[in-house]
Amino acid sequence: MTLPVRDDLLGKQPYGAPQLPQAIQLNVNENPFPPSESLIAAVAKAVAEATATLNRYPDREAVGLRFDLAAYLTRVTGVPLSVDQVWAANGSNEVLQQVCQAFGGPGRVALGFEPSYSMHPLLAAGTNTGWVAERRAADFTLTADAAVAAVARHRPAITFLTTPNNPTGTVTGLDVVDAVCQASDGMVVVDEAYAEFGGTVSAVTLLDRHPRLIVSRTMSKAFAGAGLRLGYLAAGAEVVDALRLVRLPYHLSALTQAAARAALAHTDELLGTVEAVKAQRDRMVDGLRELGLTVVPTEANFLLFGPWELPATTWQQLLDLGVLVRDVSTGPGLAGWLRVNAGTEDETSAFLAAVSEVVAARS
Amino acid sequence: MTLPVRDDLLGKQPYGAPQLPQAIQLNVNENPFPPSESLIAAVAKAVAEATATLNRYPDREAVGLRFDLAAYLTRVTGVPLSVDQVWAANGSNEVLQQVCQAFGGPGRVALGFEPSYSMHPLLAAGTNTGWVAERRAADFTLTADAAVAAVARHRPAITFLTTPNNPTGTVTGLDVVDAVCQASDGMVVVDEAYAEFGGTVSAVTLLDRHPRLIVSRTMSKAFAGAGLRLGYLAAGAEVVDALRLVRLPYHLSALTQAAARAALAHTDELLGTVEAVKAQRDRMVDGLRELGLTVVPTEANFLLFGPWELPATTWQQLLDLGVLVRDVSTGPGLAGWLRVNAGTEDETSAFLAAVSEVVAARS
Repeated sequence: MTLPVRDDLLGKQPYGAPQLPQAIQLNVNENPFPPSESLIAAVAKAVAEATATLNRYPDREAVGLRFDLAAYLTRVTGVPLSVDQVWAANGSNEVLQQVCQAFGGPGRVALGFEPSYSMHPLLAAGTNTGWVAERRAADFTLTADAAVAAVARHRPAITFLTTPNNPTGTVTGLDVVDAVCQASDGMVVVDEAYAEFGGTVSAVTLLDRHPRLIVSRTMSKAFAGAGLRLGYLAAGAEVVDALRLVRLPYHLSALTQAAARAALAHTDELLGTVEAVKAQRDRMVDGLRELGLTVVPTEANFLLFGPWELPATTWQQLLDLGVLVRDVSTGPGLAGWLRVNAGTEDETSAFLAAVSEVVAARS
Repeated sequence: MTLPVRDDLLGKQPYGAPQLPQAIQLNVNENPFPPSESLIAAVAKAVAEATATLNRYPDREAVGLRFDLAAYLTRVTGVPLSVDQVWAANGSNEVLQQVCQAFGGPGRVALGFEPSYSMHPLLAAGTNTGWVAERRAADFTLTADAAVAAVARHRPAITFLTTPNNPTGTVTGLDVVDAVCQASDGMVVVDEAYAEFGGTVSAVTLLDRHPRLIVSRTMSKAFAGAGLRLGYLAAGAEVVDALRLVRLPYHLSALTQAAARAALAHTDELLGTVEAVKAQRDRMVDGLRELGLTVVPTEANFLLFGPWELPATTWQQLLDLGVLVRDVSTGPGLAGWLRVNAGTEDETSAFLAAVSEVVAARS
């Protein structure tokens, strides 16, 4: 690089998993069930209506969409939320980037518990926020005591918690969230991107007690809308006001707002896929264990399986058999593990058959 | 604010013009001509196709869209551009934010020539990049000598040039761009958001001579797609590689990519509105001058008109008459000026009638 890029970017590589569309895609935690014909028609209709005034800027505040998101969260958590407690952006990555812009920055640090979502440190770096990481326990859990001790040690401006945690699928208890909120004078983000696949209570239920708590979610996973790029958060109204100071004006397009609202109007149908995904995930867990492998307990739509002596080799063997999984083994604390997400019944069967073949070949 | 927001955000207000949909909207430089029925149908069809796989992440590299954008720029500038020289994001604000993230940051400064687009300093602030501003000449022009002297004084990591300049409509000559590129060892951004409304040659023609030159554009204005949120840039392939290090993965949704490509397939139709917009702008210029007002020479779809002793009062009077313009008079060097963009024939007539009434009332 001969250009004057920022010093800390020199030698870096762009984030992202391989895009190999010819294989069965079980590597980026997508929902394997595509939208129904009726949802496709509803999205097209909503987008056509929005396109009629596409020469105009969209609603800068995305009030209608945020109202619908608040109603959805209220429905699934039982916590009454108003529109001014909900914020949305182009994927939860942008939501969390805005959180880092508003509450992080130079001279401040964000804290995470690794292994966890590898975008969190990148979002910190992209906003010139320092990053400190503490390790999870060997079984990838995180206790309140360990989390509180880390907060006391680093005094982070932002603490990232995750439940279920990516890439391990591990649940973080509300007791941990509650303790961290009490221990920290910074913001506490609970990333619940995969919450709908788990059975635990949302951290949204703690919002009324903790003004610095932020709960982020996404329509990419349970709502089967990875291509839509719609992330959101719930927090106090004052948090949302702070995000408005750093958001790019008109950051959510008229089409995104319209399409997301059409999808939210099909909530029952979309959440119907969640049970099917969980059923395939449970098949995966059982099938892998029957093959003698270890699977980390998961409440997400994905799981860690291993241990593999040469995970990169196993990854390639599975790809050669037509199945794309995620090699996370180079990440902190993840040596020997591969990650896979639940597919359709056929995809899950193909995955289990491929793993079976790899296991048979090595013994 | 009782929350621990970043210190430099304390007391700030969110960016944005009033959203008053009941008035004639001539305040945010939109194209007044909505998409045709055939374009609406094409966007809906493209979006429906993309929605069929909305459970999948979009193409992270947006290759098809960038190919189409490169073809468009090649067509209108005569400069052969390849896909790896073009980058796109959710509005040119996000494009420029990524430029600031990659090439700015703590310890570096960006330079602008004010009055200019008020988002440039906000994008610098949002990325912890310092901001220095030099003033344009009294007639809002910028000479190569003045620009080069400013570069020598501040040694900016990023220099923002604009042509036509918002909010003044003033053209910046290629000689200025060329001189700044030669004088600076930082990046030079030429913001050509309104270029299609002018008659001058694009800075894209200088790309082969200046590896640190970046030319940004948008589909919001000439392409009548403000609601689409699609900005893009042309630069060397190495610049695009650097932006990939800071862009959020999957930042462009599948729907945005599909809709933008559908709009680009209607380029001839959309650029047809440009002549109509220019005709109304010229009517505005003539009409305002006939009323005894001063209009700053413009090659954009908007113009500055004045001088007004009490611009906020005039703004309110015009709004009371049903026409929403932009009060830019509190900006640097803009005392006494209001900004208005060209509307449809009826909207332009209503605007001129309203101004006429205001002028008559004060004499």
